[in-house]
Amino acid sequence: MSGELFEEIIEALGTFAFAISGIRLAAAKKYDIFGAFIVGFATAVGGGTLRDLLLGAPVFWLSAPRYLAWTVVAMLFFLLFRDFVNRLGQTIMLFDTLGLALFNMVGIKVALGMGSSMLVAVIMGTITGTAGGVMRDILIQEPPVIFQKKEIYAVACLPGGGVYAAGHYLGINDIFLQITTIIVVICIRIITHRKNISLPYADA
Amino acid sequence: MSGELFEEIIEALGTFAFAISGIRLAAAKKYDIFGAFIVGFATAVGGGTLRDLLLGAPVFWLSAPRYLAWTVVAMLFFLLFRDFVNRLGQTIMLFDTLGLALFNMVGIKVALGMGSSMLVAVIMGTITGTAGGVMRDILIQEPPVIFQKKEIYAVACLPGGGVYAAGHYLGINDIFLQITTIIVVICIRIITHRKNISLPYADA
Amino acid sequence: MSGELFEEIIEALGTFAFAISGIRLAAAKKYDIFGAFIVGFATAVGGGTLRDLLLGAPVFWLSAPRYLAWTVVAMLFFLLFRDFVNRLGQTIMLFDTLGLALFNMVGIKVALGMGSSMLVAVIMGTITGTAGGVMRDILIQEPPVIFQKKEIYAVACLPGGGVYAAGHYLGINDIFLQITTIIVVICIRIITHRKNISLPYADA
Repeated sequence: MSGELFEEIIEALGTFAFAISGIRLAAAKKYDIFGAFIVGFATAVGGGTLRDLLLGAPVFWLSAPRYLAWTVVAMLFFLLFRDFVNRLGQTIMLFDTLGLALFNMVGIKVALGMGSSMLVAVIMGTITGTAGGVMRDILIQEPPVIFQKKEIYAVACLPGGGVYAAGHYLGINDIFLQITTIIVVICIRIITHRKNISLPYADA
Repeated sequence: MSGELFEEIIEALGTFAFAISGIRLAAAKKYDIFGAFIVGFATAVGGGTLRDLLLGAPVFWLSAPRYLAWTVVAMLFFLLFRDFVNRLGQTIMLFDTLGLALFNMVGIKVALGMGSSMLVAVIMGTITGTAGGVMRDILIQEPPVIFQKKEIYAVACLPGGGVYAAGHYLGINDIFLQITTIIVVICIRIITHRKNISLPYADA
Repeated sequence: MSGELFEEIIEALGTFAFAISGIRLAAAKKYDIFGAFIVGFATAVGGGTLRDLLLGAPVFWLSAPRYLAWTVVAMLFFLLFRDFVNRLGQTIMLFDTLGLALFNMVGIKVALGMGSSMLVAVIMGTITGTAGGVMRDILIQEPPVIFQKKEIYAVACLPGGGVYAAGHYLGINDIFLQITTIIVVICIRIITHRKNISLPYADA
């Protein structure tokens, strides 16, 4: 029960963070408020939706109107504090990193709950954390930023998944392990960003 | 039985209208006849397909080859009367509005038939009415027109859904209520279009 | 059993061919190695994934990690022999034609195995053979090449499907029939390519 509450809280934070990132980029592309809302919602729930479709699970947000509600909150927050949100810069990157780490963890848990292997669960964590951002970029007609920027972004989910898998097999307390996994992803993302550690181009 | 026939007729009209809109835009982008056909088919069945995937329902057009047949009819109509279709202008907008209103109603009915809540049904109506157009725009590599044009388009589905929901709880005759819902969406769309009532940009 | 092995072999070859095509185009767009890998994987498994989602079948690569492994092999092959792969030109087209013909056959078999009608099976063959390439083009933000180039590409799957359907009803040995279908698609593609036989534009 306490585990469920913990998961609901990290889902709410991740949804808000991703919705803001979608709304902000759509607004910069001169999308209207409906378009920005849909791009925000797709960014927030797109990864989890693709995960559920691939796993054959019921699509999570259909039975949980709170995801729609959090996107409405993000939209209102953006409309009220637009200048503030647009000036955020680096802070937005922290937001986005938070969403990535939180959704990665949610995706791993959902896949394991559906009886997936640990390999599939780690892949589903990465998809949950990153596919919404790819959908956002396709909806605003930009090349997906996570494929081009060379940053350690989606790739940061993999060591996170590795840590979770190792701890899971060692029988470590699950909530403690989830928090550790989230922190690992956040740390890898921030440290590689600060130190300019990046992926090579495919066509060097 | 009479209700089923009514639904088949509105589905046929909506399919034809949306297929023509996809074929026309793809042709203008110098797509070949195969490409135009696929864009037309995606525009026509894309919204309902996304709805069925999200609801976990069997994808409607797999067991109903008539949707494919109607797209073939739309393709032949376009090839035979190309100049006529390209000169349509405002009339195309009426076509498109008809497809929107009809598919919105179909989506609401399908979702309720799957046991969805009324909130989910209204969302599924909007998705059925509009997601095909978004897929069309992505396949022709344009920013989705419904996100940018500020017009009351997808948003017109919401009051339609509201009217259906209200009438449904009041126990009004369903065919009468469906026709009313379709007319409400069409009227909102045409009136806001005529009066230049539009949505604000997200980044005003 | 021998039939299953035959299908596994053609799936492996098709996966490698399509993954290389995706990785190569993503690399040319300055995607990083993660981006190129994902585009390669989407090109390779995208068609089969869409087929499985539409049919309501379990998504094939979730229970078969070998598809992921073959994409890793394709990625390593590309990184090691980049200059060689980039100089291939016409040979790449042969690769791609092989993938198309092989995946078309796989898609027909999977759909029939799910109890689909022959019409749906032929459509699913075409989707399995071509939708990965459309996803590739959307992920690299180019208009889908199969919609514009006027070549007999996706359309080559249809006579292949017709041959399979005819042979199936005549009770011809299935492995022999599958090989024939694959050869028919390859021949139609190569002959029309050599003779510059092409589709007309939709807006001639």
